[in-house]
Order: sequence, then C-alpha cells, then structure tokens
Amino acid sequence: MNKIPVAILAATGSVGQRFVQLLDQHPWFQVVALTGSERGHGKPYGEVCRWLLAEPMPEWARDLPVLPSTPEAVQVPLVFSGLPADIAREVEPLFARTGTAVCSNASAYRRDPTVPILLPEINAGHAHIIPAQRATHGWNGLIATNPNCTSTGMTIVLRALKDAFGLRRVFAVSMQALSGAGYPGVPSMDITDNVIPYIGGEEEKVEWEPRKMLGQIIGDQIELADFTISAHTNRVAVTDGHTVCLTIEFEHRATPAQVEACLAAFQADELARDLPSAPHPPILVRHEENRPQPRLDRMTGHGMTTVVGRVRSDSLFDIRMVVLSHNTIRGAAGGSIYNAELLYQLGYIRQ
Amino acid sequence: MNKIPVAILAATGSVGQRFVQLLDQHPWFQVVALTGSERGHGKPYGEVCRWLLAEPMPEWARDLPVLPSTPEAVQVPLVFSGLPADIAREVEPLFARTGTAVCSNASAYRRDPTVPILLPEINAGHAHIIPAQRATHGWNGLIATNPNCTSTGMTIVLRALKDAFGLRRVFAVSMQALSGAGYPGVPSMDITDNVIPYIGGEEEKVEWEPRKMLGQIIGDQIELADFTISAHTNRVAVTDGHTVCLTIEFEHRATPAQVEACLAAFQADELARDLPSAPHPPILVRHEENRPQPRLDRMTGHGMTTVVGRVRSDSLFDIRMVVLSHNTIRGAAGGSIYNAELLYQLGYIRQ
Amino acid sequence: MNKIPVAILAATGSVGQRFVQLLDQHPWFQVVALTGSERGHGKPYGEVCRWLLAEPMPEWARDLPVLPSTPEAVQVPLVFSGLPADIAREVEPLFARTGTAVCSNASAYRRDPTVPILLPEINAGHAHIIPAQRATHGWNGLIATNPNCTSTGMTIVLRALKDAFGLRRVFAVSMQALSGAGYPGVPSMDITDNVIPYIGGEEEKVEWEPRKMLGQIIGDQIELADFTISAHTNRVAVTDGHTVCLTIEFEHRATPAQVEACLAAFQADELARDLPSAPHPPILVRHEENRPQPRLDRMTGHGMTTVVGRVRSDSLFDIRMVVLSHNTIRGAAGGSIYNAELLYQLGYIRQ
Amino acid sequence: MNKIPVAILAATGSVGQRFVQLLDQHPWFQVVALTGSERGHGKPYGEVCRWLLAEPMPEWARDLPVLPSTPEAVQVPLVFSGLPADIAREVEPLFARTGTAVCSNASAYRRDPTVPILLPEINAGHAHIIPAQRATHGWNGLIATNPNCTSTGMTIVLRALKDAFGLRRVFAVSMQALSGAGYPGVPSMDITDNVIPYIGGEEEKVEWEPRKMLGQIIGDQIELADFTISAHTNRVAVTDGHTVCLTIEFEHRATPAQVEACLAAFQADELARDLPSAPHPPILVRHEENRPQPRLDRMTGHGMTTVVGRVRSDSLFDIRMVVLSHNTIRGAAGGSIYNAELLYQLGYIRQ
Repeated sequence: MNKIPVAILAATGSVGQRFVQLLDQHPWFQVVALTGSERGHGKPYGEVCRWLLAEPMPEWARDLPVLPSTPEAVQVPLVFSGLPADIAREVEPLFARTGTAVCSNASAYRRDPTVPILLPEINAGHAHIIPAQRATHGWNGLIATNPNCTSTGMTIVLRALKDAFGLRRVFAVSMQALSGAGYPGVPSMDITDNVIPYIGGEEEKVEWEPRKMLGQIIGDQIELADFTISAHTNRVAVTDGHTVCLTIEFEHRATPAQVEACLAAFQADELARDLPSAPHPPILVRHEENRPQPRLDRMTGHGMTTVVGRVRSDSLFDIRMVVLSHNTIRGAAGGSIYNAELLYQLGYIRQ
Repeated sequence: MNKIPVAILAATGSVGQRFVQLLDQHPWFQVVALTGSERGHGKPYGEVCRWLLAEPMPEWARDLPVLPSTPEAVQVPLVFSGLPADIAREVEPLFARTGTAVCSNASAYRRDPTVPILLPEINAGHAHIIPAQRATHGWNGLIATNPNCTSTGMTIVLRALKDAFGLRRVFAVSMQALSGAGYPGVPSMDITDNVIPYIGGEEEKVEWEPRKMLGQIIGDQIELADFTISAHTNRVAVTDGHTVCLTIEFEHRATPAQVEACLAAFQADELARDLPSAPHPPILVRHEENRPQPRLDRMTGHGMTTVVGRVRSDSLFDIRMVVLSHNTIRGAAGGSIYNAELLYQLGYIRQ
Repeated sequence: MNKIPVAILAATGSVGQRFVQLLDQHPWFQVVALTGSERGHGKPYGEVCRWLLAEPMPEWARDLPVLPSTPEAVQVPLVFSGLPADIAREVEPLFARTGTAVCSNASAYRRDPTVPILLPEINAGHAHIIPAQRATHGWNGLIATNPNCTSTGMTIVLRALKDAFGLRRVFAVSMQALSGAGYPGVPSMDITDNVIPYIGGEEEKVEWEPRKMLGQIIGDQIELADFTISAHTNRVAVTDGHTVCLTIEFEHRATPAQVEACLAAFQADELARDLPSAPHPPILVRHEENRPQPRLDRMTGHGMTTVVGRVRSDSLFDIRMVVLSHNTIRGAAGGSIYNAELLYQLGYIRQ
Repeated sequence: MNKIPVAILAATGSVGQRFVQLLDQHPWFQVVALTGSERGHGKPYGEVCRWLLAEPMPEWARDLPVLPSTPEAVQVPLVFSGLPADIAREVEPLFARTGTAVCSNASAYRRDPTVPILLPEINAGHAHIIPAQRATHGWNGLIATNPNCTSTGMTIVLRALKDAFGLRRVFAVSMQALSGAGYPGVPSMDITDNVIPYIGGEEEKVEWEPRKMLGQIIGDQIELADFTISAHTNRVAVTDGHTVCLTIEFEHRATPAQVEACLAAFQADELARDLPSAPHPPILVRHEENRPQPRLDRMTGHGMTTVVGRVRSDSLFDIRMVVLSHNTIRGAAGGSIYNAELLYQLGYIRQ
C-alpha cells in the first residue's frame, strides 16, 4: 500500500510535536511536510523545533524544512492542524476549499453545525455530515475537529451511559494537566504548590461540546442532544492526563454495578473499531478505591483508552465516578489521527 | 490577667506542632504540658519532635518534657487534642470526666449528638449543648470538636447563604492539601505529577458534618439541618490550603451579585466576633477570575479567613463558586483554639 | 523623623513587588512613586500589577499611579531598581547623574570597578568607593548593586571563612528556586518532574561576583580577591530559596567544628549591624543531618539570615557544607533595601 | 531455546516491581516465582502487590503466588534480589550456597572484595572474580551486585575518561529522584516546594563504589582504582532519573571537544555489547545548553543509556559536565538483568 502523504500545521508547537511523534511509522499516513511560524521558514525542523516530548524526535522529521501554513506551500490530501484557534479560523478553510481534508485540534469551527466534532468510538456516523458541509461552504475538502481535551473522556463515557440509561443532568469538575495549556503555557510560579481554579473558555466548551457530539444529524446540521452539563475547570500540577469528577442524573435508575457493566462492555462504533488508532479497550473500568490516577493510568491503551473508576451511587443524582483521559494523545493529536483514519476509511479523503 | 494553663495532646504530630506554633504568645492560654507517644516520654520536646513547620519552634517548647496523654500526667483545665481518632476515642473522655475541657481536632466524637462541632463564626450557640453533654455523659469537663478541614470553609459559606437564601442541594468537589494527611502522610511517589481522586472517609464527613453544624439544638441534642450534600474529595500536590468547588441550589433565587454581597457582609456570630482568633474578615470575596488559589490566598487573615471567588450562576443549580480555607490553621489547630476561646468566654472552662 | 521619599523602578515585576512588600512600614523610607512599562502609565498600581506574593498588596500601593522610569517623572533622593539588565544599563545612570541614589538589583553595573556590590554584613566598607564612582562618572548620585541571588549566601559564608582560614578554591553547585527567573519565568512543563541543569549567565556571575565582594578598594577601584570558584547552576522545583552545595579549600587547615564555630560567631560589619534590615543572626548554623531545606529554612530571620548546615570534612578539599538563602528577600529586594540603609547611614544619600 | 526459570526476591517492592516489568517477555529468562513478606504468602501477586508503575502489571504475574524468600521455597538457577540490605545480608548467601546465582540490587555485599559490582558496559571482566568468590565462601552459586543508582551513570562516564585521559579527582553533586528511596519512601510534605540536601549513606557509596568498579582483579580480590571522589547527594522532586554534576581532574589534559568525542565513541565491553539489555548507545552526548533533563532524557535507550551534556572546561579542574541515568532501570532492576545476561553468557549460571 502506498501511504497517504500528510502535513502537520503548526508542527513546532506542543500539539504539533505530538502529531509528529504519533505519526511516526503510521501504517496509512506518511508525513511529508511540516509547517511553522515565519522565523523558521526554510530551516530544518530539527533545528527550529524546541522538542519537549520524552520520546525522541523521529529521524525523518529532523531534516524536513519548516514551511508556511498555506495550501500553496503544502499540497497534500490531508493535513493535521495544531494551529491556535484564531489562525485556524483563517487558514483551515483555505485548505478545505482546495480539496484538502483538515483534521483539526483547534476550536475554531467546532460550533459550525456542518463541522463534526468526532470521537470515532462514539459518533463515527457524524462523519456523514461532510457532504452537507461541502455543499454549505463550497468546499472540496473538509474540516473535521476533535473536541476540547477535557470533553473527550467524559463524552465517551456519557455516550455509553446515555444509550443505556438516558441522560438528564451532569456535574463535571476537572483537574487538568499542564500540557493542555501548550508551551510555554502555565508559568511554574503559578502552579507550584498551587491549584488554579480557572481555565479561560474551558467551562463553556465542556458544557456545550458533549451535547453536539451526542447529538444527531438532522437534515444538513448536527443538532444538540438534550441534557445539561455544569462544569468547574481547574489546573493542577500534573504534566499529562485530565481527571474529571462526574456526577450524573439518568432518565432511568441504574446501580453502580449496572453502570460499571455498561462501561466495561462498551464497544467502539463498528465503523471505528478496527482502525489503527482505535483504543483497546475503549473504556477501562478500574475497581481500586483510588484510581484512576493520571501518572499511573494515562498511558492505558497507548494513551487512547478512557479510564474510569470510583463508580458509586450519589446522594443527589444517580451515580458518581472519576474519568481520566490523556489530554495530548486521546484528547488532541491521537484523537485527530483517529478521526483521519475514520474519514479515510469512509472515503472522505481523496488520494 | 493570669493565663490559663493548657496542654497539647499529641504535640509531636503535625496538628500538634501547629497548636504549639499558634499558641505561642496567646493572650489567654499558656502551654504548660506537651504529650506524645511512649518512646519520647521524659525527653525534651525539642529533641523528640521532628519539627516540620517553616515558623521556628518557640523557645519555651524546646525544654518541656514529653508526657503521657493521661489526666494523671496532665492536670490542666484545658487540653487541645491532636490525637488520632482511635486513640482520641479512648483518651478524650478520660479528660472530660476529670473536669478538663477537651478542644479536639479528632473526628472520634463528632457524631455524638451532645458534642458540638464548632465554628464560632457561625454556630457559637452550639456551645450551649455542653450542659446536656455533661448530663448525658456524667462529665465535669467537656469535649468540643472542630470539623473536618474540608468541611470548614464550605460550611462557613453555607451558613451565610442558608440564612439569606435557604439551602436545598450542594455539590462539593475538593482539591486537598498534603498537610491534611499528617506526617509522613502521602508518599511523594503517589502525588508527584499526579492527583489521587480518593481520601478515605472524607466524603462521608463532608456530606454529614456541615448538616450538623448548620443544625439546631432541640432538647438535649443537636439536630441536623435539612439539605443534602454530594462530595468528591481529591488530593493534589499542594502543601497547605484546601480548595473546594461548590455548586448550590437555594430555596430562593439569588444572583451572583446578591451572593457576593451576602458573603462580603457576613459577620461572625456576636459571641465570637471579638475573640483573639476571630478572623478578620470571616469571609473575603475576591473578584479576579482565577482566585482563590491556595499558595496566594491561604494566609489571608493569618490563615483564619475563608476566601471565596468565582461566584457565578450555574446551569443546573443556582450558583457556583470556589472556596479556600487553610486546612491546618482555620481547618485544624487554629479552629480548635478559636473554639476554646469561645468556650472560655462562655464560662464552660473552669479556671 | 521625616521619612525619606523613595521610588521603585519596575515595581510591577516580581522583584518590584517584593520591594513594595518589604518597604511597607519601613522605618526610614516611604514609597512615593512606582514605575512600570508604558501600557500601565497613569493607571493605579493596584489595577496594573498582577500581584504574585502571598502577602497582600499594601493599601498605600493600590492607588499610586504607575509612572515612567525617568528622573523627570520620579524626583526622589533614592530609587530601588528592579529593572531588567538591558534597561537598567540605560536608565540607572540617568538617575545617578541627577543626584539620585540607585540601589539596584540589576546586573548591569556590577562589573564597573567603581560600583560596589554590597552585602552590608560583610563588605560595608565598599560603600566608600562612592566618591571615586562620582568622580569617574561625573554623577551626583550613585549606583550601588546587590549581587546575583545565588552569590549572596555563599559570599557571606566565604567572608567569614576567608578571614579565619584563608580561601584557595571553592566548588559551588546550586539548586535554585523558580522565583529567581522572574515572571512568567520558567514554564511549568519545563520543571514539573524535572531539573534544568542550566541557567543562562549564572555560572559566570557566581564565579566572579564573590571575588569582587571579597576584594579591596585599591585607589579608585575595587580589586578582586585572589581565589577561584567553579560553579554548576541548576533550576529545581522550589518556589523560593536557593540551596548551594559548597566544597572549600582553605589556606590553613580547619576542622568542621572550627568552621561551625567561626560561622556561628560571625557578626555583621559594625557599620551594618544595627540597620533596620540587618539579619539576626547573619548566619545560622544548623546541626541536623538534613538541613537547611528551602521550604523550612528560607524565612529564617525574616528571610535575611543565611542558613548553613551539613558542615563536614571533605575528601578532596577541606570542608563541605550546604548554604541556603532566600533569593528574593536576602538575595534581591531585601538586600537592596539593606544596602540603602547602609548608604543612608554613611551619608551617601542626600535628603 | 528453553528459557531459564528465574525468581524475583521482594517482588512486591518498588525495585521488585521494576524487575517484574522489565522481565516481561525477556528473551532468555522466564519468571516462575515471586517472593514477598509474610503477610502475602500464598496469595496471588496481583492481589498482594500495590503496583506503582505506569506500565501495566504483566498478566502472567497476577496469578503467581507470593512465596517466602528462601532457597527451599524458590528453587531456580537465578534470582533477582530487590531485598533491603539488612535482609539481603542474611538471605542472599543462603541462595548462593545452594547453587543459585543471585543478581542483587542490594548493597549488602558490595564491599566484599570477591563480589563484583558489575556494569557490563565497563567492567564485564570483573565477572571472572566468581571462581575466587566461590572458593572463598564455599558457594556453588554466586552473588553479583549492581552499584548504587547514583554511582551508575557517573562510573560509566568515568571509565571512558579514565582510559583516555587518566583520572585524579572527581567532584560529584547529585540531584536524585524520589523512586530511589523506594515506597513509601520520601513523604510528600518533605519534598513539595523543597530540596533535601541529604540521603543517608549515599555519599559514602558514591565515593567508594566507582573506585571498585574501575579497579582490577589482583589475585582473588578486586582492588580499588586509585583516584578520589568527593560527593554531595541531594533529593529533588523528580519521579525518576538521577542527575549528577561532575567536575573532573585528569592525569592528561583534555579539551571539551576531546571529552565529547571520547564519550560519543565509547563502546561497551565486547563481552557485553550484544546482550539483550545492552544500551544503544551506551553513552549519548547531547549538545543543547540545557540538557540532559530527567523528564526528557531518562528513557533514552529504553532507560539503559547514560546521557551526558554540558561538557565544558572548568576553572579549577579540567572538565565539567552533567550526567543523567534512569535510577530504577539502568541504576537498579535493568542493571541487574544486564548483569545476569553477562553471567549467563560467561557460563556462571547453571542451567
């Protein structure tokens, strides 16, 4: 099989580096171009990029020249975007217009009703909004997004529970990792011996994105699912892995044992179950009283599995639990790659 | 004025050390005895105690001999107890029986309906259960407790709000400091680059103790207030200061501005307002988008003030906010001292 | 006594904030002006400054307008400078020329042989280079600097030892706090679960500045003392307090007990012993096997005392020890204030 | 090939867990027995062991019963020992006597002149002391140790440099990871926002063990190499990876470029170069100004490579550098496995 040539936009940033690392030896995709900001143009990636991952930079990346983030400079059928939201808003449609599939980690188009926020385990069918997206925007390519990293794990869990018990109300309180803020991100003096009980724009995303992901395609739009989320989001001194305390009110009563059984039995959407990045298992239920923990559990299933623990009954709603997800793998670059695999398999990426 | 001679039980432990530090130069109380475990008996405190506070050990404490925790060894009208719960259960009544007032940080007797859990700002009147306690138990002295450190700040806030708007339901998610686990407490390998989403026995305390503190003396018992709390409790990499995310449903609607005004105007119970350890202000409302933070705000009002921020409306209940309280000062030793001041002023401590 | 009106240059930065906090209620100096960068000009300090200290911002500072860092805007006999080195290089002489005494934390003029690097405990006499400085530069005012924060504690120790035993060679390895890098300073992703074995420009300062501070005024210059230092400097996950491992070769043999006795007996230069900021004691020798530690010992003597421990013999040189100093108090703002007190007492600051 | 059956002594401890994880799918060795303390005897490992590694517990380990650490309970040709030193002192000879090869991480027998401290890259030939060991002690089996984790990386570097330039004097200052203290190990209150400038017994080991490893077999003993080390050892808030600042005086002058070239060209002893656990490369020289760093570099070569950086000239001796080594992989369990591979290949382990 000839691999599909792909590019990474904003490859020198922290999400971009994760794309480079995770696409190393990908069975379907081959990175042929890396883009970055102007002062690095023309220089080798290995020289421009301040590599921050513990895994070494792949050899093939070192000598790739850093290019501008334009469709003229980068002509490939598929790009992964680690662009900041404001730049993504301008640049991503340029690619979509010229026939490129953009799998984006940016929030810029998540609120567009023709742009899917994909988690292939749970809403692979949302990919079929693409024809409506193309018609609406006059694009030959496409934009598909992955959700905010904090929404990721909880929405996977909520999908399984919604199907089984119905959802009414959800309380979510996050304790989020530093890598979610990019680089340089959070100053060390702000988080050493400290908690920051605020992350700009995050609570709005956590309260809205899951409802879109659990919604339905109605006509040429994705309509929101009908339940309500209330979120507090906090930053804690953890490198990777977002922890979320969830309290859930169902439409139908359920015991902790039923909830655990439901989550443990959850299987990814059939369309997405055998893709290269599909997590095995999609959800892992732990039974220790003090798990999941980010340092110990974030790499479960190569960082793609959602880990759940402390499933117990609640005094106000029905069920409480703790959900953990690796924010830069399942919640960012790994998620975008999984999305691209789905879109490719469904024929939405031209070769 | 002659100072009242007092003793500290379990003075070598982490709560005990805080008692020693906070009672240094107390205007009413003078520490004359320190107790500890058997292997230190007879040796000077300065030699036995592995002092862990940044403030230096007071000079007077260095040479006090470590005594057994018995009424025979320690004959004073008032003892402060930093004993672990299982030992407190046996030892504290021995003191109460012999006429000593025990101001305890232990949880052993918090569930006794004749033992008050005191936060003088908000339920000073609960001290008047003491006669019923004495009658019930046949004690000449008394036991008064302070609540679990996580309940402390949130209950002070809930009191102010209950009086103004009525309380129905409360969600609470804590991010708790390491010092709350004592010493050696949490192993560093468990919390570095990590969160532990579980603290043994803590959620039960946080869901129950505030209801008692906001309850009423009916006959010879304290009856629980009628509202419901649901709690998740977590350990984070912070030395001191417990942060709690609160979401509250009132009986009567209230805007964030009304809630802020109510909290800012809150005054301590008149009985407790002018005591030496009374916090000034009892509640501080901050208006920055990212406060309170433990490292920056825990020492507000010498560690006795409850700090509130991010007061905002909620999508499910009425109001959300973040509450911070210093867990070893307001939430432990400082709280017990404040309780003792109240009890002394009310005449419940013999001289 | 009328207080001397003073200004703080770059008062919104992290060193500037420490000046504001430490000058609150200073017995001799009264802050009347605060300067900052252009976008804050004319606005109240309380609004412009993102206050990062655990101690609350003093009331008087909140309403002071932020001014430009120019002698025209700020006409006072004494300014404290928290300016970055490149700006200090241009701005500080403007003040010195117009008759203002500049007590600077910046490194810009430390290498000027007529500018003293002062640690009043140990080289108060270097203040008497000021007449030569004025003559050389044609200034009516003056510039006096405090050393790099890492040099501070070790130089105080080296002074005491040099006088007693003579100095030949010194190895120094630092583990430095995050606050030394200013704000935003070190990104949290760089230091969480990590050590950074490099601090730009630091080793050069640590190897050179102590030699100037321990040197002598010869004619119109300060000449370097004749011994050699080799330094490794490292950044560690500590908020405040620089720890230095020292290994020292003397001219004359000395036992650990002699060294401890020498350090414990050390008294500040008589000129500086009774100044308001003089540390008591100047050096504290601890005898526990595992001290000093930054979290526990940095606030010794209100953050002005140098703490020494683990004094022991060495297999290559003579003596090893560990030295701790609070980097933003003794090593920065507190040091500059102590310098100003010395210069004022010696008559070098006009009223 | 039939795999050699092996056992892990103290398999529930932190070093023991690392043995379990690293021996999963080892090409030569198959774990057939795990031992632990008495209260776990007879119970499955998966139930008794509080697993603390981020990598999941291998399936085969879950159901192995925990056995006593005695030759009667565990009859295999090779055991890996994660025993504490005091127990190792009694137990390991019992195994050696009965014909078992003990590859030990404990310090108990490192000072025995017939017991090799092996780092196969650099002193594989020391394995040939085994016949003398057997004769001296009357053992059929053997004890081989790996060094203290802090000595590991620096000794590998010193070997390369000794061969090229000769060694006279070495200053070493370590910043050591928390995992080196085992579990529960360092209390979190001792290391959060802190450095501990002391590790019991460590400096003595760091000053002595490298000299034995770089020594020679003379007759039936290993004699120490003739150079001197002076060490300060410190604990810092890092999970894994020991960082050492080294300053070295050679017999023959060498430039930084020569030293870097020497280290980069270093090859493992031919006897040990192709063993399954041999690091590739044995030493990696990094050229960035701020590397190596534990979080980014500890997993180089699967945690078996020694990483060196900041090679530069020194003002007192000849050369300075920073050395990093993964303390629980290369410095503990991984090192013992590498030793066992060497001993097996040399025929010292009976089948």
